[in-house]
Amino acid sequence: MYIGAIEAGGTKTVCAVGKENGEVIDSVTVPTSSPKETLADIGSFFNRYEIRAMGVGMFGPINLEKDSGNYGRVLNTPKLAWRDFNVYDYLKKKYGVPVFLDTDVNAAALGEFHWGAAKEAESCLYMTVGTGIGGGFVKEGKPYKGKYHAEMGHMYITKHPDDSFRGSCPYHAACLEGLASGTAIKERYQESAQMLSENEKVWELESYYLAQAVVNQILILSPEKVILGGGVLKQSQLYPLVRMKIVELLNGYVHTDDIEQWVVAPLLNDQQGIKGAMALVVLN
Amino acid sequence: MYIGAIEAGGTKTVCAVGKENGEVIDSVTVPTSSPKETLADIGSFFNRYEIRAMGVGMFGPINLEKDSGNYGRVLNTPKLAWRDFNVYDYLKKKYGVPVFLDTDVNAAALGEFHWGAAKEAESCLYMTVGTGIGGGFVKEGKPYKGKYHAEMGHMYITKHPDDSFRGSCPYHAACLEGLASGTAIKERYQESAQMLSENEKVWELESYYLAQAVVNQILILSPEKVILGGGVLKQSQLYPLVRMKIVELLNGYVHTDDIEQWVVAPLLNDQQGIKGAMALVVLN
Ligand SMILES: Nc1ncnc2c1ncn2[C@@H]1O[C@H](COP(=O)(O)OP(=O)(O)O)[C@@H](O)[C@H]1O
Ligand SMILES: Nc1ncnc2c1ncn2[C@@H]1O[C@H](COP(=O)(O)OP(=O)(O)O)[C@@H](O)[C@H]1O
Ligand SMILES: [Zn+2]
Ligand SMILES: [Zn+2]
Repeated sequence: MYIGAIEAGGTKTVCAVGKENGEVIDSVTVPTSSPKETLADIGSFFNRYEIRAMGVGMFGPINLEKDSGNYGRVLNTPKLAWRDFNVYDYLKKKYGVPVFLDTDVNAAALGEFHWGAAKEAESCLYMTVGTGIGGGFVKEGKPYKGKYHAEMGHMYITKHPDDSFRGSCPYHAACLEGLASGTAIKERYQESAQMLSENEKVWELESYYLAQAVVNQILILSPEKVILGGGVLKQSQLYPLVRMKIVELLNGYVHTDDIEQWVVAPLLNDQQGIKGAMALVVLN
Repeated sequence: MYIGAIEAGGTKTVCAVGKENGEVIDSVTVPTSSPKETLADIGSFFNRYEIRAMGVGMFGPINLEKDSGNYGRVLNTPKLAWRDFNVYDYLKKKYGVPVFLDTDVNAAALGEFHWGAAKEAESCLYMTVGTGIGGGFVKEGKPYKGKYHAEMGHMYITKHPDDSFRGSCPYHAACLEGLASGTAIKERYQESAQMLSENEKVWELESYYLAQAVVNQILILSPEKVILGGGVLKQSQLYPLVRMKIVELLNGYVHTDDIEQWVVAPLLNDQQGIKGAMALVVLN
């Protein structure tokens, strides 16, 4: 009997079966279209395996209040076909196995915590910088959960004095996501981030914003490991820049001798989400 | 047998004896001068009681790493006489009872959590806005502890476009503390905060900064209760202003229908620190 895992993202959904040790036996990627179509695709994959439980890392917003009577219901997402659909109820009924659910970013943090860059750590923050910015946090082996799930991508930070871009977040304009996501980069420069690798100014500014985000999280959560992932971090020149600016911004207030081991890249090569979904099962 | 409690602040130290239920039986306030003098004052108070354990909320920075071999040592504080002094070792030896130590702000959070404004909550953030800005966080009944203890007073936030003050923090200039502490207010306006009650612009700006701080903490920690205390919050007109600006800044991204119960004043009337020190014992 295998563990089943689903990583449901905004554009694509990954399904996998694997073992307790995190080994993936088989996987498939299908488009995230309507629940009906996507779940049919998922079904034809899982029908070929016997699974004992299922872990799901899910795009948000989603109801994760266990006692709310609506656990697992997709909330007001721009993906209209998914709105009000209850993923948890559907999967539990369809597969007749225990289902463990969390946000996609919490799952990614858990994947890196169990089998990746934060294996030895007591706590781990995973921040993904892609179309948007999101963060997941694992503390004492469990995904962190407060009154609501974290939305740290929208924190307020200091705007660079030379940055005249008003910010791309429809809710907050110049929040972190509004200043530093792939979407923000594209709006500011009228060109996709991946086309701008040679433009040093882009990464100077980007690293200034990401460093502030990490500094605030260090000052508030104080995670033992900080993992920066997502499409924009494919620009690996960002890592040394971000580290340097973290040290400058903290300015001796917190020890940063170990910054190279503290703020790092993911180790799981784009598998942190799906492995994290597997870890949700292992953990429970 | 009573519980002993010490709240050691930058200028004064409160000692108390009390009961398991948080009732204070007797207390005294002495100046925080040198360890020698202050501890002599403390001694003449505690010598009159039989205590079974001692809780201490201590000004920082202080070593709270249990396995470091230097647990309880005061670190590089500007108060030179206290630097390198080991509070934990001293008290344990002198009184021969178990000693439980945390930061002053974590103690205050714990006091409000056990016996104050956050009694029914699962988690509680206590932020004090006085000479500096500090925050303590209680989660699942325990003071939160990361790699280091939190220093959330120094987070980076967005400067108001009309604020030309460069910021008072010697480390970060325009961090939260550098823009919104009592010290920052005094430097910006050349007058103490308590003399500025009638100047509406002061509280407009102040509430803008405090609201950002709370918003970031809501997005990162998602506490069930947020308690704002400290000298500057004696300006009680701040509470409705801060709440209003939190709602504006979040702009619908997080539910704020319950903002009046979510972001509140302390209930323990300047006793949160000393009662929190008592709670450190009750908890252990
Ligand atoms: N090699 C790259 N360099 C810089 N930016 C990239 C790169 N690859 C993707 N991106 C940016 O990352 C974003 C997509 O993020 P990604 O993490 O791949 O997916 P998503 O966030 O949608 O799940 C886009 O804004 C894209 O411009
Ligand atoms: N009534 C008041 N209104 C506004 N500010 C006040 C008031 N009382 C004290 N403060 C400010 O609070 C700061 C002192 O903070 P407090 O919390 O009393 O002590 P500390 O932070 O030093 O432990 C000073 O900057 C002072 O100007
Ligand atoms: Zn935003
Ligand atoms: Zn500062």
